[in-house]
Amino acid sequence: MQKAFVDVLKERYGSPHKLNELWGLTYWGQLVDNWDEFPARDGILNPGYKLEWDRFQRSIVTDFLAWQAKLLREYIPSTQFITHDFAGVNTKVDQWAIGRNLDIAATNIYFTAQDKLDGMEIALGGDLFRSVKNAPYLVTETNAQTIGWDSRAQYPPYDGQFRLIAFAHAASGASLVEYWHWHSLHYGQETYWRGVLGQDLEQNRAYREVATIGADLKRIGPDIANLKKDVKVAILFSTDSNDAISYMPFSDHVNYMSLLRQMYGAAYAAKVEVDFVTPATEDLSRYKVLLVPPLYSASDAVLQRISKFVENGGHAIVAFKSGFTNEYSTVRWVRSPGPLREAAGFSYQEFSNLAYAVPLKPDRYGLGAKSQASTWAEFLVPERAETLLSYDHPFFGKYPALTRNRFGKGTLTYEGTVLTPELQQAVVREVLQLAGLSGPDQQLPLAVQVRHGVNRAGHGVHFYLNYSPAAQTLVYPYVAGSERLKEQPVSQGAKLVLEPWGVAIVEELR
Amino acid sequence: MQKAFVDVLKERYGSPHKLNELWGLTYWGQLVDNWDEFPARDGILNPGYKLEWDRFQRSIVTDFLAWQAKLLREYIPSTQFITHDFAGVNTKVDQWAIGRNLDIAATNIYFTAQDKLDGMEIALGGDLFRSVKNAPYLVTETNAQTIGWDSRAQYPPYDGQFRLIAFAHAASGASLVEYWHWHSLHYGQETYWRGVLGQDLEQNRAYREVATIGADLKRIGPDIANLKKDVKVAILFSTDSNDAISYMPFSDHVNYMSLLRQMYGAAYAAKVEVDFVTPATEDLSRYKVLLVPPLYSASDAVLQRISKFVENGGHAIVAFKSGFTNEYSTVRWVRSPGPLREAAGFSYQEFSNLAYAVPLKPDRYGLGAKSQASTWAEFLVPERAETLLSYDHPFFGKYPALTRNRFGKGTLTYEGTVLTPELQQAVVREVLQLAGLSGPDQQLPLAVQVRHGVNRAGHGVHFYLNYSPAAQTLVYPYVAGSERLKEQPVSQGAKLVLEPWGVAIVEELR
Amino acid sequence: MQKAFVDVLKERYGSPHKLNELWGLTYWGQLVDNWDEFPARDGILNPGYKLEWDRFQRSIVTDFLAWQAKLLREYIPSTQFITHDFAGVNTKVDQWAIGRNLDIAATNIYFTAQDKLDGMEIALGGDLFRSVKNAPYLVTETNAQTIGWDSRAQYPPYDGQFRLIAFAHAASGASLVEYWHWHSLHYGQETYWRGVLGQDLEQNRAYREVATIGADLKRIGPDIANLKKDVKVAILFSTDSNDAISYMPFSDHVNYMSLLRQMYGAAYAAKVEVDFVTPATEDLSRYKVLLVPPLYSASDAVLQRISKFVENGGHAIVAFKSGFTNEYSTVRWVRSPGPLREAAGFSYQEFSNLAYAVPLKPDRYGLGAKSQASTWAEFLVPERAETLLSYDHPFFGKYPALTRNRFGKGTLTYEGTVLTPELQQAVVREVLQLAGLSGPDQQLPLAVQVRHGVNRAGHGVHFYLNYSPAAQTLVYPYVAGSERLKEQPVSQGAKLVLEPWGVAIVEELR
Repeated sequence: MQKAFVDVLKERYGSPHKLNELWGLTYWGQLVDNWDEFPARDGILNPGYKLEWDRFQRSIVTDFLAWQAKLLREYIPSTQFITHDFAGVNTKVDQWAIGRNLDIAATNIYFTAQDKLDGMEIALGGDLFRSVKNAPYLVTETNAQTIGWDSRAQYPPYDGQFRLIAFAHAASGASLVEYWHWHSLHYGQETYWRGVLGQDLEQNRAYREVATIGADLKRIGPDIANLKKDVKVAILFSTDSNDAISYMPFSDHVNYMSLLRQMYGAAYAAKVEVDFVTPATEDLSRYKVLLVPPLYSASDAVLQRISKFVENGGHAIVAFKSGFTNEYSTVRWVRSPGPLREAAGFSYQEFSNLAYAVPLKPDRYGLGAKSQASTWAEFLVPERAETLLSYDHPFFGKYPALTRNRFGKGTLTYEGTVLTPELQQAVVREVLQLAGLSGPDQQLPLAVQVRHGVNRAGHGVHFYLNYSPAAQTLVYPYVAGSERLKEQPVSQGAKLVLEPWGVAIVEELR
Repeated sequence: MQKAFVDVLKERYGSPHKLNELWGLTYWGQLVDNWDEFPARDGILNPGYKLEWDRFQRSIVTDFLAWQAKLLREYIPSTQFITHDFAGVNTKVDQWAIGRNLDIAATNIYFTAQDKLDGMEIALGGDLFRSVKNAPYLVTETNAQTIGWDSRAQYPPYDGQFRLIAFAHAASGASLVEYWHWHSLHYGQETYWRGVLGQDLEQNRAYREVATIGADLKRIGPDIANLKKDVKVAILFSTDSNDAISYMPFSDHVNYMSLLRQMYGAAYAAKVEVDFVTPATEDLSRYKVLLVPPLYSASDAVLQRISKFVENGGHAIVAFKSGFTNEYSTVRWVRSPGPLREAAGFSYQEFSNLAYAVPLKPDRYGLGAKSQASTWAEFLVPERAETLLSYDHPFFGKYPALTRNRFGKGTLTYEGTVLTPELQQAVVREVLQLAGLSGPDQQLPLAVQVRHGVNRAGHGVHFYLNYSPAAQTLVYPYVAGSERLKEQPVSQGAKLVLEPWGVAIVEELR
Repeated sequence: MQKAFVDVLKERYGSPHKLNELWGLTYWGQLVDNWDEFPARDGILNPGYKLEWDRFQRSIVTDFLAWQAKLLREYIPSTQFITHDFAGVNTKVDQWAIGRNLDIAATNIYFTAQDKLDGMEIALGGDLFRSVKNAPYLVTETNAQTIGWDSRAQYPPYDGQFRLIAFAHAASGASLVEYWHWHSLHYGQETYWRGVLGQDLEQNRAYREVATIGADLKRIGPDIANLKKDVKVAILFSTDSNDAISYMPFSDHVNYMSLLRQMYGAAYAAKVEVDFVTPATEDLSRYKVLLVPPLYSASDAVLQRISKFVENGGHAIVAFKSGFTNEYSTVRWVRSPGPLREAAGFSYQEFSNLAYAVPLKPDRYGLGAKSQASTWAEFLVPERAETLLSYDHPFFGKYPALTRNRFGKGTLTYEGTVLTPELQQAVVREVLQLAGLSGPDQQLPLAVQVRHGVNRAGHGVHFYLNYSPAAQTLVYPYVAGSERLKEQPVSQGAKLVLEPWGVAIVEELR
């Protein structure tokens, strides 16, 4: 394996001297004169080396699966397809590269049911794996009764939640929902990863509710599956940035993925569907809003692409640390944020951790004490950007915490610090409005989520999902249609009542 | 050793195919076709394998000690006896099996003195090791000045506590109290495991108080030792259940032993002496009340024995998870609680962890906020059982938390959840009353414990132990006798005053 | 290495039987009959062995550096000097022994800037390394912008703090302040150990402030460096006691070094400069006050030297556990505190951890709830000592917590427990007064520190350092002179105003 890594490096960089130059391997006496001396992984402190190693790890998985797929293609008939179960969201594989070898993407989506069920993991997992091939995907595993390799976190869904979960998967674009597993094991490590049936193999509460889902899908499945979606918001998923930050973490509590989830969650709270894009995604022109979690490691080209997106009329929200290091995890030789400087409208030379939460001023979003910064503060020096929020602090007060810069036909909103979730939501809502993406979906009750698509008949399909134990009422704003679970007509402007943990699916009929 | 384990399995199960069937070894690709392929311990996830391995570990210790005892018996004169220092309560050895090779059981009883001294560890350790041979036992080590392999928890007993401790051992049935050790070491790891004397080898506070104990024992020792006891309450100690739960824990805080201690502690708070019995104890007919901590792994025969105990007029308190798996740690193929279903009067198919404490209703025991469930909730469906307490919760509310079923001449009280200590005490007190075991002992001041026995003269002996820094007064309710520490007569109905951390021992004289 | 350790032991102890006698190696079956059987380090529980091993570790470092220095001396011209960068305060090397091979001591002093900057680490590190050769020292590394191997604790100094830090080093006696490092690295593990310049290599806030320091030093450096100091308070630094306590810790939170820092910090709060002395320091006669953190392991000779210091008119403050073990980490065969008994005026046989904080009485220092004991309580029995504070507790109340004994011409104040920082400060202030060491420095505003010296011109030099974000005013009490940073005359009794985080340096002119 180590040999192969060296071979990859030879091919990519030509000579060890190039690595010395890019990564500074000479630090800690690791000067490399020829490839035979190239150091093994253990104990290497160099962030450049670590990043290339992690990329190499990902490439091994991609290559292996590509080879497997190639073997299969020699034998399978055209009625069969190739998929791979990605087993959830993670940063250790390159889903897009692997996806190019598959016919359909598949994943497992697990979460905590009962009171904590808010659909966020279902939406996030669904949006990510739909984005991998920009197409419907399979949910090859999801919660049946309970999950866990012990009995510490057994949370069987409440009544109604089984249905809510299944149709939430469909709403994100899943064309299969498969439980792990049919009946619970009597022995072995997954005794408590319980299936639809328990160990007694008798009918039970889960079975009875799942049976109603099956009956519904038999009736309306083809009308609500394989939906086409027209998503206007994208989030940039950079495994390199996740990895490079992990070598130099800025917090014990906050990290790349928690900030990606915070940004995604703000869009989710705003009832907006999101596509996932990667630094390799060249064409961003179909999106109006781009969310950028800390893009700590990125090439000039990727940063220029974001600038161009803004210049052409896009609206970007960019988190702190973006642009700080290049694609070798090496700090740039110029002021931060490097190639983003012009689009961002500021530069900075310094930054600080925040030893305590610092209030922000003015109270632009009416959040009171929740308008707060924490963890990190870049000492932004505006060059053309507008200051939206500043630190209420004797020293940090001279630096903006949140800026916005008009650049070309779009805007770049920059977060120089860690926002509270409430503040992140306010910023995302504001930018959605700037981008003209606000509408009736944003007026829905807090607990109600909505997802849209167009079915094979060309009809709009609207999923309303009630993530609460209380009934919810909403005004249906779209073209008149039929609520397909109860098969009842719904006119535009009609009241739609969702039961506790309930679902409604309206298919437009024009 | 591994070889020997395979040999034990060969003998017990005949063929590896039997193990595949019982434990599901095929899971994780561990199909075993012949004994040579039998997997080694490391990394095996299978709970059935783990349980058999832990039993095997215990058997090694038993066999070794039996062999040692056999060697000794060839040489020792009849005036000598064989004992073994069990070094405290633990689940790693089979005390009863080892005990059959000994003349007398012995143990070390250590605890925290000063304000936390409540006698519970002394009583629990004493009751367990008295039960091993159903006979008096030796305390081969107990706290002198302080204990510890460092100086982080040095808590020398307060004035009076040395006496209280010594007579508390005697009250449980100890016929020896030996300190570890005489004088404190000057060097080595146990410098701070301090003896009666300190390192200065001079007389000190501990020495002076221990000297009074010696004088008392010289005078009255034979009258208060080797007591016969008639205990009516038993607690079932299942190391298999402890082990099997530990492979699939239901909590980070609560486990088999903490629940056993909670049940034992409830009986202790009710001033009731308890015998320990094991799943191998065939005759339970001498007991009126049986406490059953989570009997997670048990054969049909053991569960039927508990049912029979109830049917014959016994009163059992059984904790959740009892009966869930069989003696192979394999979940039963029938509804829980399996063979206990008829005696318990309910069945269940589902269960949940509780993410937060849930109040119970109605307030049957007048405990207010302390009438609370936590950690675990089985979805009990009563078939004949009476519901005593239910969850005050929108979803869990439809299932009982505490049930009682009349079965034959007795009752089975079942706890489907983790109770607060206060609630456990209320349940135990109620069942003691049902069983006709309430009397004057239950009227004693909170801090006063009492233990009873009959001495070689056939006289009742009553120990009163004051676990508090305040003097306590009680009414002596038994046959008139003599308080032997002060050698003063005590008539029935007389007031008895205990000094702070004080002791009184009344020997009946009839 | 192990071989060499045995050789050291052979030389020092002659025979293994001597070690058996001193350390009790026989405990745990480690009887050693000849040197070949001498046990290896791993798994040895014996505190005597551990202590000798740690001393041996230190001696290896000393020997190596002595050899290096010897090699250098053969080659360097007389214009050059030999130093060693001690890289901060630690207990793993013998700074004094190494120092004898150096021309100048050098160290790195790192700390947390921003709100937590109080100068204590600068003062402590400076006082220790000045004491190593009783001469000026070099600060070879100190905070520039930020420190850290990740970005979790990036705290660039506030405006003005760069200057405050640099002159604080000078005030303690540093003759060099060197930043680590000039510009920040672009790659490698120390990317976030940022220099004066950032990675953009442009001028920045740090550069501009550091440039003013350079200009000041160019002008007045020779007048404020190489100061002579006349320090009257010493603190005893015993690495043996640190080590021996670490084998038998009395707390998870408090240890030898935390108590040394508490005592040093009390002197620092009293604005008193402190020399560090070691158990090997023979002449203590230049000091009036000696602070003794827990001197857990010490030979009779060292304890007698402290007694003699007191007898001759010195004032010692001695912490609990002092004298408990001898130089072999073996508990003495006599009552504690062994050879200190006469000077201390009490003895004790027992001690206890404190499970909770215990108030002290009477409120001698007007500290209210901050007059509190914790962690440890020795059962002191006064023989001639005066009781200053006792425990407000039903059991511990009979023992003093703080005693003072007049012995010869001096006093020994003994702390039998862990004091709060506020109480420690009160005790130190009281003893400073007893020793006649109170004066105008003790009247300074809370946030202002002062340090003194005499320069090569024979002029007194007084540094005033404002560790606060507020301006501070003080009355200058010494001989009239010139404030050298602003080059303004200062008369005796004049008001001196320090800016936020500001500095004033007055050179007396007579």
